[in-house]
Amino acid sequence: MMTIPVGDVRNVATLALQKASVPMEHVIEQLDLLMEAELRGVPSHGLLRLSRIIRRVRNGVADAKTSGSHTWRAEAFLEVDGERGLGPVVANSALKVLMERAKKTGIAVAGIRNSNHLGMLGWYAERVATSGFTIIALSTSEALVHPWGARKAMLGTNPIAVGIPTGGLPFMMDAATSVVSMGEIHDHANRNEPIPPHWALDAQGNPTTDAKEARKGSIAPFGQAKGYALGIAFELLVSSLAGAAIGREVSGTLDDTSVCNKGDVFIVIDGPHRDLQAYLQEIRSMDPADGFSEVLIPGERGRACRERRIAEGVPMAEELWTEMQILAGLKNAA
Amino acid sequence: MMTIPVGDVRNVATLALQKASVPMEHVIEQLDLLMEAELRGVPSHGLLRLSRIIRRVRNGVADAKTSGSHTWRAEAFLEVDGERGLGPVVANSALKVLMERAKKTGIAVAGIRNSNHLGMLGWYAERVATSGFTIIALSTSEALVHPWGARKAMLGTNPIAVGIPTGGLPFMMDAATSVVSMGEIHDHANRNEPIPPHWALDAQGNPTTDAKEARKGSIAPFGQAKGYALGIAFELLVSSLAGAAIGREVSGTLDDTSVCNKGDVFIVIDGPHRDLQAYLQEIRSMDPADGFSEVLIPGERGRACRERRIAEGVPMAEELWTEMQILAGLKNAA
Repeated sequence: MMTIPVGDVRNVATLALQKASVPMEHVIEQLDLLMEAELRGVPSHGLLRLSRIIRRVRNGVADAKTSGSHTWRAEAFLEVDGERGLGPVVANSALKVLMERAKKTGIAVAGIRNSNHLGMLGWYAERVATSGFTIIALSTSEALVHPWGARKAMLGTNPIAVGIPTGGLPFMMDAATSVVSMGEIHDHANRNEPIPPHWALDAQGNPTTDAKEARKGSIAPFGQAKGYALGIAFELLVSSLAGAAIGREVSGTLDDTSVCNKGDVFIVIDGPHRDLQAYLQEIRSMDPADGFSEVLIPGERGRACRERRIAEGVPMAEELWTEMQILAGLKNAA
Repeated sequence: MMTIPVGDVRNVATLALQKASVPMEHVIEQLDLLMEAELRGVPSHGLLRLSRIIRRVRNGVADAKTSGSHTWRAEAFLEVDGERGLGPVVANSALKVLMERAKKTGIAVAGIRNSNHLGMLGWYAERVATSGFTIIALSTSEALVHPWGARKAMLGTNPIAVGIPTGGLPFMMDAATSVVSMGEIHDHANRNEPIPPHWALDAQGNPTTDAKEARKGSIAPFGQAKGYALGIAFELLVSSLAGAAIGREVSGTLDDTSVCNKGDVFIVIDGPHRDLQAYLQEIRSMDPADGFSEVLIPGERGRACRERRIAEGVPMAEELWTEMQILAGLKNAA
């Protein structure tokens, strides 16, 4: 791993997206998202995705120019056709009008289809909460997770993010309904390390701790039957409200050539505010249990990581950094 | 355990509530809720609660006459002061106007404070979804759950229920964000049975499998850090939007004499519909994993139980049945 100053990482990634003819204002949105994932220590949602985004633009399954088209199905229900736009560009455009509408109606919802991968959901939640709104964000993905008690994948990793104004920095949580991401299983496989029990099944639906076998199989829902119940609820809800594909029909979040047909739902609320700082501080200052050094508030470890990396630089695999420089036209492919 | 015909159970419970001067239309709502919990195999949310409800009415911390007062904070944001009303009476009244409003705005939300225990959240979710709306229901409760990595209780069991129209019977899931309910721990303690590891901590914050020690301690969030993140998100969201108490301030869901100051939030959506039956059937017909006999859809085991119990009667502890008959004035207290 190398450590690269944040400015250098951003400049090279900017050049790479510009070379793919992404308009500058959309470069900024797409990179804000990918950089935030790197800064907060979620590399699976970071610049690792840059080359795929560029290939998808070149292959015409991502349209870097559009920010989607909006139709108000009802006064507080926005239907968004992403028109194959970049995930964060389409989402930010929808969130902007949702916040505006929620000021009037108190709550507004968007169902988004035909848009590319949203990336780290928590990024949207934190921005909306920083603007003074409460948000619930949901997204679906390709079938990687097995229903509780089944042998094969059928559900997406179906993450949820929640953002809430607190009177200080906003509260933000972001979690997939799978026990881990497929990225983490690939990472173990690449390092020839076993995975913990109960993470995954192999292709035949039997429990495995071999990451290479798990890669061909399915991931467990988090929290057993309850996490499965949440994951399927979010999948059904998003598919209905966004008019998006469901289960094994979903494609285009993991490849370079399929149109992305998953869905996203944002619920934005302009509600009464409350100072939640004292309560959060009460939790932070609790005695930690055996094996823990502190009691954490969700989202805050990522925020601390962000501060460090802005000061010290972003750790990055040499191959990824080389790939980015090639995409930016600063190096020739070997 | 005895098995009592559904009609007999309902008649005795009706008399008990009438004797406490609950108006007949509110008796029906309160009993529909409690009976559904019994029928679906969730006795912790069933008639076990009847005597507490009656004592709370008699003690003036529950007002059986009111259905709460409504203020539209914005066009699609309903503020509800429950005026100490019965949980299901206040909730049903709010849901009725939310559905009406969502037909116009597409989505509407209610924040409810000063209302009594909602009982089984899934009951509301299923009814609203049966009426053709999507619903997310959240409620807070007294601090029984420890933050992940902490030694003491700070969070409520903070359940979520989701209801979604499917083209056939609605989808409904309902889960607390704790690994189990405190009722289940009490149940183990009463039967002198140990609890599984990782369910609970004792009063000193150490892991225990002794149900009697766990009863004095705290319950784990389900799914470790992720379930904790969801639980705290729901607690902050409900407390903000409903203007309700938070954490250890919450009281009145487990005793006879405190005003109930937790909050509830309902989000009701009149969205596009989609036939989800084929997808649900695809999941039901998946090969079960080792140790499972079938792959279940959330909510359906409860529904099957309901059918059986309507036909065969409700299993009930003799003490509870006796208590109900005494409350109904059909038996004298021993």
